[in-house]
Amino acid sequence: MNAEIIAIGSELLTPFRQDTNSLFLTDRLNQLGIEVHFKDVVGDNHDQLVSVARIAFSRADLTIFMGGLGPTEDDLTREAVAEALGTGLERDQELVAWLHKRFASRGIKMRDNNLRQADVLAAAVVLPNANGSAPGQWLQTEYEGKARIAILLPGPPHELRPMFDSQCFERLRAAVPTQFIAKRVLKVAMVPESELDARIAPIYTQFADIQTTILAHAGEVQIHLQTRSSSKEATDARVNELAGKIEDELADRIFSTAGESLEQIVGCYLEMRSASLAVAESCTGGLLAERITNIPGSSHYFLGGAVVYSNELKTAFADVPPGLINQHGAVSREVATALAEGIRRRCKSSFGMGITGIAGPDGGTPEKPVGLVYIAVADGERTDVVERRFPGDRERVRWWSTTQALDMLRTRLI
Amino acid sequence: MNAEIIAIGSELLTPFRQDTNSLFLTDRLNQLGIEVHFKDVVGDNHDQLVSVARIAFSRADLTIFMGGLGPTEDDLTREAVAEALGTGLERDQELVAWLHKRFASRGIKMRDNNLRQADVLAAAVVLPNANGSAPGQWLQTEYEGKARIAILLPGPPHELRPMFDSQCFERLRAAVPTQFIAKRVLKVAMVPESELDARIAPIYTQFADIQTTILAHAGEVQIHLQTRSSSKEATDARVNELAGKIEDELADRIFSTAGESLEQIVGCYLEMRSASLAVAESCTGGLLAERITNIPGSSHYFLGGAVVYSNELKTAFADVPPGLINQHGAVSREVATALAEGIRRRCKSSFGMGITGIAGPDGGTPEKPVGLVYIAVADGERTDVVERRFPGDRERVRWWSTTQALDMLRTRLI
Repeated sequence: MNAEIIAIGSELLTPFRQDTNSLFLTDRLNQLGIEVHFKDVVGDNHDQLVSVARIAFSRADLTIFMGGLGPTEDDLTREAVAEALGTGLERDQELVAWLHKRFASRGIKMRDNNLRQADVLAAAVVLPNANGSAPGQWLQTEYEGKARIAILLPGPPHELRPMFDSQCFERLRAAVPTQFIAKRVLKVAMVPESELDARIAPIYTQFADIQTTILAHAGEVQIHLQTRSSSKEATDARVNELAGKIEDELADRIFSTAGESLEQIVGCYLEMRSASLAVAESCTGGLLAERITNIPGSSHYFLGGAVVYSNELKTAFADVPPGLINQHGAVSREVATALAEGIRRRCKSSFGMGITGIAGPDGGTPEKPVGLVYIAVADGERTDVVERRFPGDRERVRWWSTTQALDMLRTRLI
Repeated sequence: MNAEIIAIGSELLTPFRQDTNSLFLTDRLNQLGIEVHFKDVVGDNHDQLVSVARIAFSRADLTIFMGGLGPTEDDLTREAVAEALGTGLERDQELVAWLHKRFASRGIKMRDNNLRQADVLAAAVVLPNANGSAPGQWLQTEYEGKARIAILLPGPPHELRPMFDSQCFERLRAAVPTQFIAKRVLKVAMVPESELDARIAPIYTQFADIQTTILAHAGEVQIHLQTRSSSKEATDARVNELAGKIEDELADRIFSTAGESLEQIVGCYLEMRSASLAVAESCTGGLLAERITNIPGSSHYFLGGAVVYSNELKTAFADVPPGLINQHGAVSREVATALAEGIRRRCKSSFGMGITGIAGPDGGTPEKPVGLVYIAVADGERTDVVERRFPGDRERVRWWSTTQALDMLRTRLI
């Protein structure tokens, strides 16, 4: 089965708004073995919408319409799909009653135009909306002699997603041949995409039945494995076999096999060991602390730290000796080490991390160029420190630096 | 003139990748008075691509194709557009020579399939690519008796954008009636979208010739004004008139009229006054420092600060008396005040800011629920402190808290 996804709304044809629902829907459809062949965006224009709907019905088994189901004059999806299919709309009295009740319970007077939301395509199933006033619709029909499914969903993601998951996913599963999907996501930090691909391509190319997708983004590479067949056991075994071989090759470079982020994994390890952490950051300006504390419950292991942009604060908050800064410069292996060790002592934490570097765009010199960063991890017995030269702009240098720091700590905690 | 934008590539039909070029192109086309009526995504499939191209030529004056211009077998745009138009492709010998030279200069042997990149639609203008090996094409032609423009651009944004700006924008301007666009963006912090709209709708609805778009995102609302006419003076005067009336209404709630971010504006004000800043953050965990230091040159006014997740660190780094925490709780007006004043003294900065609150999802109580945040700004003479109850999840509470803090400091600096 193949699908077409149509996003409806003039605001989606401006420079400011973008359809993101289709990524969610594509993931779900792929899980069912349904491939998306076309995606379209069309404005709130009746004739254009009718034409787009007809093109979709002529070429796709399944068409999903998103948006245009509200009560205003701009909401044209119901009427346009009815016209494209040559069918009618009927006002559903149960929906009318539900709408009256919904408005009454909020103490709002319902205006007549809201009743349009009770207009349903002939033979369609109504999909109640738990998070808004616009119901969806599900229709199995024919178009030019071919079996077709049309789904109408509301545009807001918090309405569309639960409606699809609770009311469309199983209905679609019943409409496609039974198959089982197995999926694995392996996450790898701080390995260049090209190097990673060179190492694992000889492995995954021997599994032609498994779809392997490699996605690289800012210091993290994700390896997505997916396959499907009519037997659950066979599908799971097959994808586990490939995942196992890739794990053997990459070993501890893989930090997550169940979707967790690097921040989450580091947090899990710290909590398992009843260990605590403090950080002292210069060029990353709080980003490392921010990423760590973005995880709910991080207060169990993260005590805090210092953002030490000025040299005075490196001394005041992490006890970096002024002489050390004078001798080696603020951006140096020695100062990174002193930051990690100093913040650890000051915060009485099990681990301390220090980062100092030049994020740019200014401040670089021939000896110490933009992108040069020193990162240290201390635990009271041993302090590891690395020098890195990250390419790219300020944002990228800061992000890579914090990813490197988290990955160093992860490696220490394994 | 109206336009259709077609993104080509099977990877754009997965859950992982999304076309973003079309937002850039829409902005540029709108500047020329060209409206986008349709956007499509299609995979690397010859027949589907031919069909999509024919539909576009039948309904749009201008069609922009993005991607599929490389050397591999998956790159099918040239052939598909030629077939849709019923025209041929010719190998351009100048391009062949350029490709040979390009590869030679890099010391890479060019494989024959690269020559496909020299295949040009009959009567098309070649658009040299300064940032890659795939040239673009510009074609003015007819389809079913109507004048049509087709533009073929490479998919990577760093190739597409400069190619469009340097080689297509002026060509398009010559093809559409002369008109001048005036545009203003007013940014407002910490005013709910509905309240803002209620205040300014009576104003902007009187300017029906100006397109007013209100975009809300995480504590910031942007008001975009745009209009066009055949006279530059008239267009500028008209949009200035509306912008002026909205500025009168919202007064100092508007923080930026030239595109600057809140962080940039606060940085500008601090630098103009030769003032410095330090921050002490609890629930925002470094996000405030991170946002401030994301601005290049922030070291001129930002000294640093402390992330004081634990109570001990609130005392150690910002001199908050332990008794104060015991008496009022770590999340209190008094502790926020002490954090702002303490970090200011410790860092010897002109201004100090303190944030303490409950970001969630856990840690809330009936008296102190998730979302409760206290934010303080101190300058040594006066300390302002506010209590806020932000809705939403952890990420949202943290983001709103830092936006509120930046806006409080901005208001103090005006």
